[in-house]
Amino acid sequence: MPARKTSLTALELEQGIRGGVRAVLAKAITLAESTHARDQKKIRAVLKRLLPLTGNAIRIGITGVPGVGKSTFIEAFGEVLTRLGKKVAVLTVDPTSQKTKGSILGDKTRMEKLSRNPSVFIRPSPTGTALGGVTYHTREAMLLCEAAGFDVILIETVGVGQSETIVRNMVDFFLLLMLAGAGDELQGIKKGIMEMADGILITKADGNNVKAANEAKADALQALHFQQTPISGWKVKVLTVSSLENKGIEEAWRMIQEYDSHARHSGYLEINRGEQQVKWVDESLEQTFRQELESPKLTRIKSHLINKIRKHDMLPSEAADELWRAIGSKKR
Amino acid sequence: MPARKTSLTALELEQGIRGGVRAVLAKAITLAESTHARDQKKIRAVLKRLLPLTGNAIRIGITGVPGVGKSTFIEAFGEVLTRLGKKVAVLTVDPTSQKTKGSILGDKTRMEKLSRNPSVFIRPSPTGTALGGVTYHTREAMLLCEAAGFDVILIETVGVGQSETIVRNMVDFFLLLMLAGAGDELQGIKKGIMEMADGILITKADGNNVKAANEAKADALQALHFQQTPISGWKVKVLTVSSLENKGIEEAWRMIQEYDSHARHSGYLEINRGEQQVKWVDESLEQTFRQELESPKLTRIKSHLINKIRKHDMLPSEAADELWRAIGSKKR
Repeated sequence: MPARKTSLTALELEQGIRGGVRAVLAKAITLAESTHARDQKKIRAVLKRLLPLTGNAIRIGITGVPGVGKSTFIEAFGEVLTRLGKKVAVLTVDPTSQKTKGSILGDKTRMEKLSRNPSVFIRPSPTGTALGGVTYHTREAMLLCEAAGFDVILIETVGVGQSETIVRNMVDFFLLLMLAGAGDELQGIKKGIMEMADGILITKADGNNVKAANEAKADALQALHFQQTPISGWKVKVLTVSSLENKGIEEAWRMIQEYDSHARHSGYLEINRGEQQVKWVDESLEQTFRQELESPKLTRIKSHLINKIRKHDMLPSEAADELWRAIGSKKR
Repeated sequence: MPARKTSLTALELEQGIRGGVRAVLAKAITLAESTHARDQKKIRAVLKRLLPLTGNAIRIGITGVPGVGKSTFIEAFGEVLTRLGKKVAVLTVDPTSQKTKGSILGDKTRMEKLSRNPSVFIRPSPTGTALGGVTYHTREAMLLCEAAGFDVILIETVGVGQSETIVRNMVDFFLLLMLAGAGDELQGIKKGIMEMADGILITKADGNNVKAANEAKADALQALHFQQTPISGWKVKVLTVSSLENKGIEEAWRMIQEYDSHARHSGYLEINRGEQQVKWVDESLEQTFRQELESPKLTRIKSHLINKIRKHDMLPSEAADELWRAIGSKKR
């Protein structure tokens, strides 16, 4: 997705973002998503100058199986936050979009009311990029939103593949949405996902479903009871919410604020963000490695080496060493 | 694990392996497991000269949950094979050994009778190495065993983590052992594992358990019915076996021979082995990349760059680029 159409200079981009101009923010994110070296160079220059403005938002990851009510919750949650004077950015990480080109999360039309709210910026996942790319760009998009003055960043993901771990690695607070079911309340929830959560919301706690939601809450608390205390020292909370009846939404925000003040006070927030930056470096490096490997030159060398292996002229480990040298020699 | 104690020259190793001397084979595998560059260089020279002798064995992967009866089956299976005049090598890939230093698979004392059989070579997994290392060395050990004249290579693994996929990527035939249970016959079997199998054995089909084993067989066939035909074109078979009563063991061998002649005839065997060599190259390269990254020099540079990131002097993506350049400059 080259971002040719933007004719804004780095300075214009920087100034627009500083001024909180959404159209400029959207263009900057498009640049960050571009695979063109020139676009990347430009957006990096912009981001670097904006770095001092970043890091002031509360970064919240939101996950849950399809049907749990993530978008209706985000709609209700976003309304509460903007009423409290917050500027809210909603970003999505959706690994399904790369495969099917249609995504489980869909696009911003799902959150119709929220998308018309002037204090809200919604940015759906780009389609067609590798998952590594999505997260890479989501991190940059997050920083750009922070520089543009957004106070709360919501990063939404769907319970597929590695996406939760990836989102968990870029947020301060990880919120798991769960559905009260007839039988096993934890059904449909991937193993290990509860260990990642800082807070759990039992959704759709309205009408006939209130009793089941309360039972699901008790079950979740029971399950948490057997878990180790997270290194943050925070005791994971479970709440019931109804996005339809607007119940529990403010409580959810209070829980997150409580976590935030706990994590800031204990120093955990800074430690965690520091570790997340290291992971970002690792992931970027990994991506560079993959890109080099998939370059036409390396692909050509590799098929030549594979031929030698087939003829018993070379060991696979020798071929790997030769490829490694070839990757090095390509660099300027 | 440096292999200092072996004072054999490359030529002595080569000749010993050509002669099928087990003590030399064992020393060669130890060299392959060594992390010392000198040992690696030596064993590569040996392996390269032996390459024309490799590829003649049937490579069989054997997996199943702990308690399914893998070792008793391998004992019975090994006896049948050696009685037919085959030389059998048993290698293990056990990801649990790296963590606990004690392994689920245990060591060769489990297969006491088989280990005294002069036509059998048993090599347990080295402990303390990373999983990547284990597989890397298991591949080399497999080639060394083939060069030493073994006709059948059994690679045993346990249903933990990625180990099945890894073993599947180095064998011709993947054998899944399953237990007949009271309730759900497929219980305890990881999702996707049946898709990898070329043959399924329902174990412990003896005494009171025969009926349950037959039911489990019917269930497995039913489950397979809904699966896509594998690209090999082979129709996956399900058999019941009793290692105790020596029932079904020869049938299992017949099934594997049938597969082998099918795969050779259709050309699939060669295609599959070719693809496995490409995977071997990829894994080796990956390993080199990781090793370079974890070198003292790179670790030092990285922590310096992380400091710059913390001070908002650098973007994580810039740090990744700088690390990438540093990895290149280290190479000779």
